[in-house]
Amino acid sequence: MRMLITGGAGCIGSELAEALIQQGHEVLVYDNLSSGSVAHLDALIGMENFKFVEADLLDVGTLQSHLQGVEFVWHLAANPDIKFKPGEATDKDLQQNTVATYNVLECMRRNGVTALAFASTSAVYGIPKQLPISEDHPCRPISLYGASKLACEGLISAFQNLFDWRCFIFRFANIVGSKMRKRGGTVITDFVGKLQTNPERLEILGNGNQAKSYLLCRECIDAMLFAVTKSSERLAIYNIGCHDSLSVERISEIVEQTMGLHHVRHEYTGTEGGWPGDVPRFILAPEKLNRLGWRALHNSEQAVVEAVRFVVQRQSVSCKQ
Amino acid sequence: MRMLITGGAGCIGSELAEALIQQGHEVLVYDNLSSGSVAHLDALIGMENFKFVEADLLDVGTLQSHLQGVEFVWHLAANPDIKFKPGEATDKDLQQNTVATYNVLECMRRNGVTALAFASTSAVYGIPKQLPISEDHPCRPISLYGASKLACEGLISAFQNLFDWRCFIFRFANIVGSKMRKRGGTVITDFVGKLQTNPERLEILGNGNQAKSYLLCRECIDAMLFAVTKSSERLAIYNIGCHDSLSVERISEIVEQTMGLHHVRHEYTGTEGGWPGDVPRFILAPEKLNRLGWRALHNSEQAVVEAVRFVVQRQSVSCKQ
Repeated sequence: MRMLITGGAGCIGSELAEALIQQGHEVLVYDNLSSGSVAHLDALIGMENFKFVEADLLDVGTLQSHLQGVEFVWHLAANPDIKFKPGEATDKDLQQNTVATYNVLECMRRNGVTALAFASTSAVYGIPKQLPISEDHPCRPISLYGASKLACEGLISAFQNLFDWRCFIFRFANIVGSKMRKRGGTVITDFVGKLQTNPERLEILGNGNQAKSYLLCRECIDAMLFAVTKSSERLAIYNIGCHDSLSVERISEIVEQTMGLHHVRHEYTGTEGGWPGDVPRFILAPEKLNRLGWRALHNSEQAVVEAVRFVVQRQSVSCKQ
Repeated sequence: MRMLITGGAGCIGSELAEALIQQGHEVLVYDNLSSGSVAHLDALIGMENFKFVEADLLDVGTLQSHLQGVEFVWHLAANPDIKFKPGEATDKDLQQNTVATYNVLECMRRNGVTALAFASTSAVYGIPKQLPISEDHPCRPISLYGASKLACEGLISAFQNLFDWRCFIFRFANIVGSKMRKRGGTVITDFVGKLQTNPERLEILGNGNQAKSYLLCRECIDAMLFAVTKSSERLAIYNIGCHDSLSVERISEIVEQTMGLHHVRHEYTGTEGGWPGDVPRFILAPEKLNRLGWRALHNSEQAVVEAVRFVVQRQSVSCKQ
């Protein structure tokens, strides 16, 4: 199939591109390089079935022309930084996520493209009423990022119904892996960076009791490819994660151990969440995907241990919160 | 309090304005008159505590200046037509509902306004998994209108959390009442209009088995005012409706009876929903609002009978789907 990946130069997108090329698909990566990197695509550039376009999703004309003949869209592009900092514009996520997604959907419609997979997030749920969080849990996002992703989901749900498309919405846990991303960095890059600067003291955002689900990037891609092949729903919504969570405190221990540091003094900013809009504790229920036949091979701790090793050894880091 | 009502020249907004003035509040109606009418405000214009501004929510400068000193915003403005017609722009709801709502929230933030009530809709739920639909039911909108309202809810949820506001989200059943609105007309105005043209034949959109919850406009306003006074939640989400539904077939009988017509030939377009994006059957569970202490006095049939009487007698009609 001829496939287009938005955000295909990112951590997840570039590994997905490799997997799809290996499966024999023709892949077009569409990325504005605002957080992705051409270096992620080194293994693919020059291959016959691969093409890279540097362009923005807000540039509708370019987007529309590149959707001609496409059969399946993987829409992964987004402003990846979930943190809202006072003083920043409040419409960053509205523009780069919601409006950009509308553009993708509308350009698909104009080109007769009828199949889409979308990278959503655990952040659509907000503060969970109960753990673990199933796909039917109410969505009350507490961040502008989560709100924009929920808006995208609603648009996809409407387009799917109105034009009889086939759509997949994947709500990701925290995805960690081998590729670098400084912008919107994860807790792992935050800790490694701080300890490289000062190995005696570590500032921890929040009270350290935050605990979230982590999944390796290659497992995330495996899960998506599995769901797209096996699910028969016309609008398929899946949590993608493992069955447990890992505390920020424990992550700091793993980082220090991997870096060979002892007696690091911890200082806490003290709030329940790490930043405004942070959901302090969540576990995504993976049962729906488990029932379909896919299960994560690594739990949160194993995923983080592997990701930390990458970061520390190669100083090249992890992906998407 | 000093209150601003967006969409305050509409059916619901104008009755709300009257109620708030009666309670002693200072009311500013902000409306672009795209579907509202100044005539709805006849009883208020000239009053000391009342002011009307004809302006658009996409005009951020005007909006921002009118939010100075406001203490509470009732955000009711929206593109009221849930129907998407092939050939129409697909971003009408995105612009007029989602982006407009973002503008309201951002201008509130800049002016230090921290309290909001928002008119949402049963359409956020999509096709219900079970009836009646509680507030925790998953939201999978099947219309662009529903998607845009869900996006607004997400934005409100995020702003509420980030800036510690107090927000109310009211998910309306089909609201019917005494005031006219041709654009995005309800099934009642549709039937009355068609039968005035040809009293022997009635085209019914769908198969006639669609069945929805109806509520009188004055009861809707009563419910909102009650919830705003009594609820202590910082983000309060309430269905506003009665406990039952009424079929389109039965509405056609009520209209014909009220108009004194007999032996009208019914013709059906035949689809399950009346139009693309129509949710054929829903009942909003009103239990959360009931527990707070408010209960509708009219069921769906009583509400429709009263609204039909208005439409037929005065040729002035009902409100919001």
